Amino acid sequence: MSSTVIDDKPVTPCLLLDVDRMTRNIQTLEARLKDLGTPLRPHVKTCKSIEIARRMMASDSPGITVSTLAEAEYFFGHGIDDQLYAVGIAPGKLDRIARLYRNGLALKLTLDNSDAAGRLGEAAARLDCAFSVLLEIDADGQRGGFRPDDPALLEAAGLVTDAGCGVLGVMTHMGASYDCRDARCLERAAERERDAVVSAADRLRTAGFEAPVVSVGSTPTATFVRNLEGVTEVRAGTHVFMDLFMAGLGVCTTDDIAISVLTEIIGYRGNAGEWLVDAGWMALSRDRGTASQTVDCGYGLVCQESGEVIEDIFVRATSQEHGILARRDGEPITPDRFQVGQRLRILPNHACATAAQHAGYWLVGEDLAGGRFWPRMHGW
Amino acid sequence: MSSTVIDDKPVTPCLLLDVDRMTRNIQTLEARLKDLGTPLRPHVKTCKSIEIARRMMASDSPGITVSTLAEAEYFFGHGIDDQLYAVGIAPGKLDRIARLYRNGLALKLTLDNSDAAGRLGEAAARLDCAFSVLLEIDADGQRGGFRPDDPALLEAAGLVTDAGCGVLGVMTHMGASYDCRDARCLERAAERERDAVVSAADRLRTAGFEAPVVSVGSTPTATFVRNLEGVTEVRAGTHVFMDLFMAGLGVCTTDDIAISVLTEIIGYRGNAGEWLVDAGWMALSRDRGTASQTVDCGYGLVCQESGEVIEDIFVRATSQEHGILARRDGEPITPDRFQVGQRLRILPNHACATAAQHAGYWLVGEDLAGGRFWPRMHGW
Repeated sequence: MSSTVIDDKPVTPCLLLDVDRMTRNIQTLEARLKDLGTPLRPHVKTCKSIEIARRMMASDSPGITVSTLAEAEYFFGHGIDDQLYAVGIAPGKLDRIARLYRNGLALKLTLDNSDAAGRLGEAAARLDCAFSVLLEIDADGQRGGFRPDDPALLEAAGLVTDAGCGVLGVMTHMGASYDCRDARCLERAAERERDAVVSAADRLRTAGFEAPVVSVGSTPTATFVRNLEGVTEVRAGTHVFMDLFMAGLGVCTTDDIAISVLTEIIGYRGNAGEWLVDAGWMALSRDRGTASQTVDCGYGLVCQESGEVIEDIFVRATSQEHGILARRDGEPITPDRFQVGQRLRILPNHACATAAQHAGYWLVGEDLAGGRFWPRMHGW
Repeated sequence: MSSTVIDDKPVTPCLLLDVDRMTRNIQTLEARLKDLGTPLRPHVKTCKSIEIARRMMASDSPGITVSTLAEAEYFFGHGIDDQLYAVGIAPGKLDRIARLYRNGLALKLTLDNSDAAGRLGEAAARLDCAFSVLLEIDADGQRGGFRPDDPALLEAAGLVTDAGCGVLGVMTHMGASYDCRDARCLERAAERERDAVVSAADRLRTAGFEAPVVSVGSTPTATFVRNLEGVTEVRAGTHVFMDLFMAGLGVCTTDDIAISVLTEIIGYRGNAGEWLVDAGWMALSRDRGTASQTVDCGYGLVCQESGEVIEDIFVRATSQEHGILARRDGEPITPDRFQVGQRLRILPNHACATAAQHAGYWLVGEDLAGGRFWPRMHGW
């Protein structure tokens, strides 16, 4: 990926990171979890940057959470040797994982079904590798995992230990929290998340498995949870940047959103009363997550170059390298409102998706002279 | 971007390119345009690969079309020195473009409003650079450009020549063709596209501008156009890969789609009768273009590893690194249908968006031993 600076200014479109906001977001969650007595294992799938991951790790963080083996390798290369790979294991990846084990990264794996447990056991024997495994618990019926009362949970744990591998414990992700519309719903989702995983851990322990790790995670539940009794770690990642979807959930406000896409105005569409900018879906991503929320933010909310939100303007539509700015109320934007060549910022619907479109982060913030760039890693 | 091979097999998820299908797609459009007597200036924003761009260029192609300056620099570095930058120019990019001119790439620019023409003139004087410009014509009211009968068209052309720059001609992109539902609509869109740009060129010539170039483009209109009289070049790019959106428009069939995402099955969700795979939106993109078509393909159609389409299965939902396979008719998929560890392919909704998520292309096809990889470029 290339990333270009001309005359000491990054070219548009590019991704800006407000370091002060990021630091505040990290500290806010850290303080919450400290009050609740449970450490954070930050999920680095949002940032994919060693500079940011290091800042996300609190003094008591056991390690990080990753979503790809490329992340595992990149962060291990940067010295982080306690990692949970939080995607149900596909057997075809076990050879590569065994190499990581031999090189010193005992990557904690996620196992979400008995068939995969059987395949894991075969690979452990073939590769002479004792994998460490968390069993994924399905707390909301939305993705993978064992229901807490599923007989297959104990069966899978047995297959794992029979193969000489370790059952470290249980983990879950409460994807259903993303469908909430108010705080009470999020609090209940966090309760259900905790209950599911704690009861599954109890069952494992009653059956003789040690299962020391009880891991939960999502930025919304981490923000609204009131009780983490029995939980040993929380995984969250989006909180580092926040986004319009999280603001729509009530997890943050637009003033907390730490990343934005810098863009330049190309021209005015007089017939429609709309303005064209040079950030299309390639820079913003195709994510339309806020379409299902009370306030649909289109492809993003528009801010002045300084970061101040322009309340009535959003990105109505995109093509690959064009964004179309319109008023939220459907009225035309007047021709005196902006000018060709003016720079604006666009707040993202979904931080993970928008950041993934960029080679890295241009830092902005009070303590920075500007011009600093932190690269991101990509791929699988 | 990293791209990993373990034991000579690419890791999943990754992007496959069926070279035979790609070659057929290129030849089909080439033959059509040859019949119509108008050369192709391929748009390389879909492929972003020199290997593919060279194959897209026919013997009579005047050059290529690009959507970013990073593309312009990459393809110029690979020896392609006739390029049209088909996004309305943002004035902040002109310093960088002037450097390209000084280095030997007289990048043809797109100008879509009079304010930008004024800014272009200022930059031309300041940088002592005679930019070459195509005026963008708005054929469908959907994005930027001058209406063919807009007085501002001649005004902008005058500003360009007064600044010592060249008015090369006119160009348009018929985005409205993407809204069509049948062949007759696409034929009419292609007629309107031609009419708009030819009449605008006539106005310019009547007013004394030479305007030798008359450029149109989109894969749907290029496929359905019957008359290109007065048009000097056609721009198209998606045709090289095709996708489900193009199949939904009737531009191709699913057997023509040349790229797919290779994925591996993680597990079965027994409660829902769905299967989980290791390709989520990070590998497939968030593009849901087919949601507005007659047949909604979710996040993509599922194929056997060999490429054979599994007619009743699609990707119903995605998270970052998970895809959920479901039956299109809503009935559960039975547990004997697939197995954990099995590899499948997923056809993309939108080739440009899906390919953009990957570091490059793993080649598959009759004439290839396999294992060959063509990288893509990224960024701005």
